[in-house]
Amino acid sequence: MQGKPNVLLVGAGGVGTIVAYGIDYVSKSNLSIVVRRDYEKVKDAGYAIQSVDYGNIEGWKPQNIYPSVESAAVPGVTYDFIILTTKNLPDIVKLEELIEPVVTSEKTAIVLMQNGFDLGRPFIKKYPKNVIISGVSHIGSHNSNGVIHQTQKDKSLVSYFENPNLSQDVQESKTHEFITLYSNKCNNCSYFADAKWYRYRKLVYNATLNTVCALTGVDTGRLDLAGGLESVSIPAMKEVIAVATADGVELPKDVINSVVHSDDGDWFEPSMRVDVKKGNPIELEAILGNLLQVARELNVEAPVLNVLYNLLKVVQFRLKEGQGLITLPKERPISDKIYK
Amino acid sequence: MQGKPNVLLVGAGGVGTIVAYGIDYVSKSNLSIVVRRDYEKVKDAGYAIQSVDYGNIEGWKPQNIYPSVESAAVPGVTYDFIILTTKNLPDIVKLEELIEPVVTSEKTAIVLMQNGFDLGRPFIKKYPKNVIISGVSHIGSHNSNGVIHQTQKDKSLVSYFENPNLSQDVQESKTHEFITLYSNKCNNCSYFADAKWYRYRKLVYNATLNTVCALTGVDTGRLDLAGGLESVSIPAMKEVIAVATADGVELPKDVINSVVHSDDGDWFEPSMRVDVKKGNPIELEAILGNLLQVARELNVEAPVLNVLYNLLKVVQFRLKEGQGLITLPKERPISDKIYK
Repeated sequence: MQGKPNVLLVGAGGVGTIVAYGIDYVSKSNLSIVVRRDYEKVKDAGYAIQSVDYGNIEGWKPQNIYPSVESAAVPGVTYDFIILTTKNLPDIVKLEELIEPVVTSEKTAIVLMQNGFDLGRPFIKKYPKNVIISGVSHIGSHNSNGVIHQTQKDKSLVSYFENPNLSQDVQESKTHEFITLYSNKCNNCSYFADAKWYRYRKLVYNATLNTVCALTGVDTGRLDLAGGLESVSIPAMKEVIAVATADGVELPKDVINSVVHSDDGDWFEPSMRVDVKKGNPIELEAILGNLLQVARELNVEAPVLNVLYNLLKVVQFRLKEGQGLITLPKERPISDKIYK
Repeated sequence: MQGKPNVLLVGAGGVGTIVAYGIDYVSKSNLSIVVRRDYEKVKDAGYAIQSVDYGNIEGWKPQNIYPSVESAAVPGVTYDFIILTTKNLPDIVKLEELIEPVVTSEKTAIVLMQNGFDLGRPFIKKYPKNVIISGVSHIGSHNSNGVIHQTQKDKSLVSYFENPNLSQDVQESKTHEFITLYSNKCNNCSYFADAKWYRYRKLVYNATLNTVCALTGVDTGRLDLAGGLESVSIPAMKEVIAVATADGVELPKDVINSVVHSDDGDWFEPSMRVDVKKGNPIELEAILGNLLQVARELNVEAPVLNVLYNLLKVVQFRLKEGQGLITLPKERPISDKIYK
């Protein structure tokens, strides 16, 4: 095994397992994974995978399976790449802190294969000399009782979150190295120069349709018929575009039209809406919180997005309470605050 | 019976039945009621009422019970008062049209004992020579399987929606006549000069806490703890106050503080939140739609209230679909509209 880079993937659920399998398929690295919920099942029996890319697989296991990040911190082992394929919920778990035991400063490249915007910032702050790679995945895959069903091909666009402490060359070559470890004849993984542009482009959908559907409890088709597309989502899209422009990113002139028509013919329920329905916490900070932080820094007004964010924070509170992450007393505490 | 005025109450549910009973108790009018859902049960057996004001009553019936407004339009009978105690859902039923068969022009006074703001407008437009009375009820009463449970005393404030085609005297005396027919030793019904002021005062709560709780799925206590009270509801309250000011209505200086503290100690779920939970349509137009109409007429900006309204319109669409009031095709229709 000597000479091969060590790769640790954290979060082997629907998407993560297919990414891990793809890396194992290439066989140019020593692959370990961290899997929490299904650990007991998977450590012996391995994964059952039904994949549009790889076919039906029974009992697949990578080199090492760990039940936690701490247990993956094996003395003498340094990781060249850590891939995060968990959900991004910084208001619940700060991932940059979670992975601290397995990060080697100036060595480990951290790959964020996650939804959201400006995700690199807390990692660059905490690991100023490490390369932070951006992966945007268009995979459709879910974990149903420990069986991974991949229904949409694994197509990913990889680049890096610009780290001002490192040269472009170092960052680019690490990114290409990751692609080499991951890209195979069954998947479609390519270099895409501008992570920032691409994540702004995705936000035009995610900050405006995903959020409004989550709040109102409908799919994008019903949102359109009910008038919310034109009364809320499109004004919100214009605010996303304004932030992008102020941030030096030029989105296509017809971006609103293409985003609106991207679900044509489908009563499509975006991810945040599905999370609310299932009672799962939503990726609110990664999608809207980070965008509004940048808007504030650039002095761009975003009144509609701000109301959506503040409303969804209340929804998130309710979802966290539902998951036992918040506990309230039986009697409502009385505040003596004076409101004006 | 000759000489007594004819009164018709439409909507004998939780609140309406107690109002009807109170009027029957006074016995100064010939009382008829329209009851739709429970008609078959009530026309023979009458009502069972458990009331904090009147005690336990079995088999109460007014003079006439009708299953519909049309059937209450009896030849030769003219109504002196029509009392509406239904929910106010003008996007589903236009009440001014519903009651057309039982209204006599220049004679019938129409009493709106309903939640909401500027409710008189469509009635004054359709019946320009009729008095439109405003009743704000603080009753706590609900209909549970045909048994009426009144848990909070019937306290109501009655005045009139100003009709520019009629003199103040005519409107005031009709309003006092209604109070005489309704007020008894068990309830608490009084004249309150300024309906407009009072309904603005109620909106400071209803347009801002009721709406936000409905959207986010929490009670007012959780709304506070989750931050939504300060980030959304209080800014919305300031917009309500701005509309009131532009409309010549001066609310108390500490109105925000008293509204916020009105639920102190309770995990209280406002009515709109309860409606959403039960899958019932919400009184969105009566509470927010009418307010925003006035805001537009007075050129008052209300950006937060506008977003809340537009989001809740989508929720209302979903609730209507859930009730079978909207039916959608299995395949989502494709629009060729170009969005900019």
